[in-house]
Amino acid sequence: MNDFVYENPTKILFGRGVIDQLGGELKRLGVRKVLLVYGGGSIKANGVYDSVIAQLSACGVAVVEHGGVRGNPVLSHVQEGIAKVRAEQIDLICGVGGGSVVDESKAIALGAASDIDVWEFFAKRETPQQALPVMAVLTLPATGSEMNGIAVVTNEETDEKNAIVCPALLNPKVSFMDPETTFSLSLQQTSFACTDILSHLMEGYLTTPAERLLVQDPVIEGVARSVMDSMAVIMKNPSDYDARAAFMWSATLGWSGICQAGIPAWGMPCHALEMPLSAVCDIAHGAGLSIIIPAWMRVAGARHEHRILQFGRRILGLDNPSSVDAVADVLTAYYRSIGSPVSCAEAGIDPDLDRLTNLAFDSFKQRGMHDYTKELITDIYKQSI
Amino acid sequence: MNDFVYENPTKILFGRGVIDQLGGELKRLGVRKVLLVYGGGSIKANGVYDSVIAQLSACGVAVVEHGGVRGNPVLSHVQEGIAKVRAEQIDLICGVGGGSVVDESKAIALGAASDIDVWEFFAKRETPQQALPVMAVLTLPATGSEMNGIAVVTNEETDEKNAIVCPALLNPKVSFMDPETTFSLSLQQTSFACTDILSHLMEGYLTTPAERLLVQDPVIEGVARSVMDSMAVIMKNPSDYDARAAFMWSATLGWSGICQAGIPAWGMPCHALEMPLSAVCDIAHGAGLSIIIPAWMRVAGARHEHRILQFGRRILGLDNPSSVDAVADVLTAYYRSIGSPVSCAEAGIDPDLDRLTNLAFDSFKQRGMHDYTKELITDIYKQSI
Repeated sequence: MNDFVYENPTKILFGRGVIDQLGGELKRLGVRKVLLVYGGGSIKANGVYDSVIAQLSACGVAVVEHGGVRGNPVLSHVQEGIAKVRAEQIDLICGVGGGSVVDESKAIALGAASDIDVWEFFAKRETPQQALPVMAVLTLPATGSEMNGIAVVTNEETDEKNAIVCPALLNPKVSFMDPETTFSLSLQQTSFACTDILSHLMEGYLTTPAERLLVQDPVIEGVARSVMDSMAVIMKNPSDYDARAAFMWSATLGWSGICQAGIPAWGMPCHALEMPLSAVCDIAHGAGLSIIIPAWMRVAGARHEHRILQFGRRILGLDNPSSVDAVADVLTAYYRSIGSPVSCAEAGIDPDLDRLTNLAFDSFKQRGMHDYTKELITDIYKQSI
Repeated sequence: MNDFVYENPTKILFGRGVIDQLGGELKRLGVRKVLLVYGGGSIKANGVYDSVIAQLSACGVAVVEHGGVRGNPVLSHVQEGIAKVRAEQIDLICGVGGGSVVDESKAIALGAASDIDVWEFFAKRETPQQALPVMAVLTLPATGSEMNGIAVVTNEETDEKNAIVCPALLNPKVSFMDPETTFSLSLQQTSFACTDILSHLMEGYLTTPAERLLVQDPVIEGVARSVMDSMAVIMKNPSDYDARAAFMWSATLGWSGICQAGIPAWGMPCHALEMPLSAVCDIAHGAGLSIIIPAWMRVAGARHEHRILQFGRRILGLDNPSSVDAVADVLTAYYRSIGSPVSCAEAGIDPDLDRLTNLAFDSFKQRGMHDYTKELITDIYKQSI
């Protein structure tokens, strides 16, 4: 077990109708004016926007709106949000939507609390010291952003898609999670979410050099099983409350740090490879992951054979997988079965592999993963075509 | 899935030598004087006391000592601690030891921050509103007190052993967990700890009426497997770092609320039955649990047959247990194998069953578990003799 720090102060309110507690929580924190961050308007279709506005209105909290967050949130839109916060003297950023919305809310909270240009933090040239408080009303479970201090933003001028990790500082103060608000998600959205959640569990599990993780192995296997089991129920009945609830809470647990704390020497090669893909081609992160992960496994998996075979046995339920490729085959079939693409062609994209390789190479360098050469990276992308 | 609130703001510093960060954390919180709470002196034998004192001295924090916490912390000693805090203008309570020490630290923090007699909170006649900050240096993992808002204290005048649950308010601000400080624990202490940790996982798992818990079942099974696997390694080599570390972190996870969040309609009958036993006979809580749980299963388990059989299959690893008694048999054998007593006789105690029954009956009433009649309670205690 590696040494670790675990700090996760987010308060979670989980269940039917929890948005009705938004006003009370804002009052408790003495908030007078919020920036309401949201995406393309699905929250207006499913009633969540109205519930939130009713709460803000009832408790006398003023609102400045900041809609139009993209699936992969972009820096220019973050900068617009920061400008609004400064102009309007906002106390708190309230993100209503999925991980992208929550991530953008955190980026705005970070940028607005400092004179330093916010991208400097994402480029790791500056260290965050303060941020405005954030709350999240989650309607698309996937990224775990509702209970961690992580945010991912794309700089569309350079196609860099960078993550920042600041536990406690960037954790939402309160997150509201009502599984019923996820009933209206399409199966495709849920499928991409499923791929994303599983990827969070897989990166550490697959890449640690440890022979056996006494606590993290069975916990990760448990959360992964919950994701796959609840996904199977949702595919039959998208309005099954217990399955939607389990899926939602598993997504939170999966990337809250609880599952990863103490795992020795793990990396995130699949995220390093996927983030250029979704930044350049603007596909869903989950779709990018189901394209990249099997390709990564086939090309770079030999060095993690022991862990990949264990993954095949304990998470995919294989009797005795003979090779990394055999596990990749079954994983590919699983992604297909839930409707997530397993090649660039299936996703309808034809990316410039040199461009992806250069971006990923920089990302690996930034992560200190120097064994990923440009040749290896290109080979993985070629496998993903 | 039931609605739930999850809030767990404790910062965990985990790993070798983390006590060296105590001074820095105290400074960060602006602490000038602490009450140092500890037990019978084992921390003086294993060097932890010296490390803590060195930290306090190096950062110029004054110390008032409060040693002598008992295995089942008692109200009179809590009251002595509260008097010291008031007389000495203490800023923070620092518990160094196991769950009893951390629980007493919380009780002192609660009592010292209010004019109300602290037992009023434990008797549920008053609701806590404030508490002094607490830190924990954990040397005996078992109760999870280092990352939850729970404290248990015995009123030795009435033999009432009551728990109080105040997430956030009573959570330690920071907990320091160095697995090497647990190397010197005896196998018996570790065995009682194992029983306690498993019991936290079992109460919800066994007593919920839910047919299937999509997320909590596999997560609880995972943590339980970690506890049992690491216990097996520790029994062979008490200084195996990874096993001690996994055992320690599993104990924390097991009663942090993460495993229980959302479980429908569960109760804690085994704790309601055990707490009178350890209060009256002053045995270790873990020893009491290994006596009570199989007895409870045999006498009251029929109503939870589906869950107990699942426990037998998925946690005890039985192929296809035929009955609740069959599971109880294997559980009894497991407790014996790790050296925890499975009857009052084995523990060398001969309690007054009427006294126990009356105390437990009151406890069940307080918990709203009205199906536990005096007859049923007595039958379970008789089974445990």
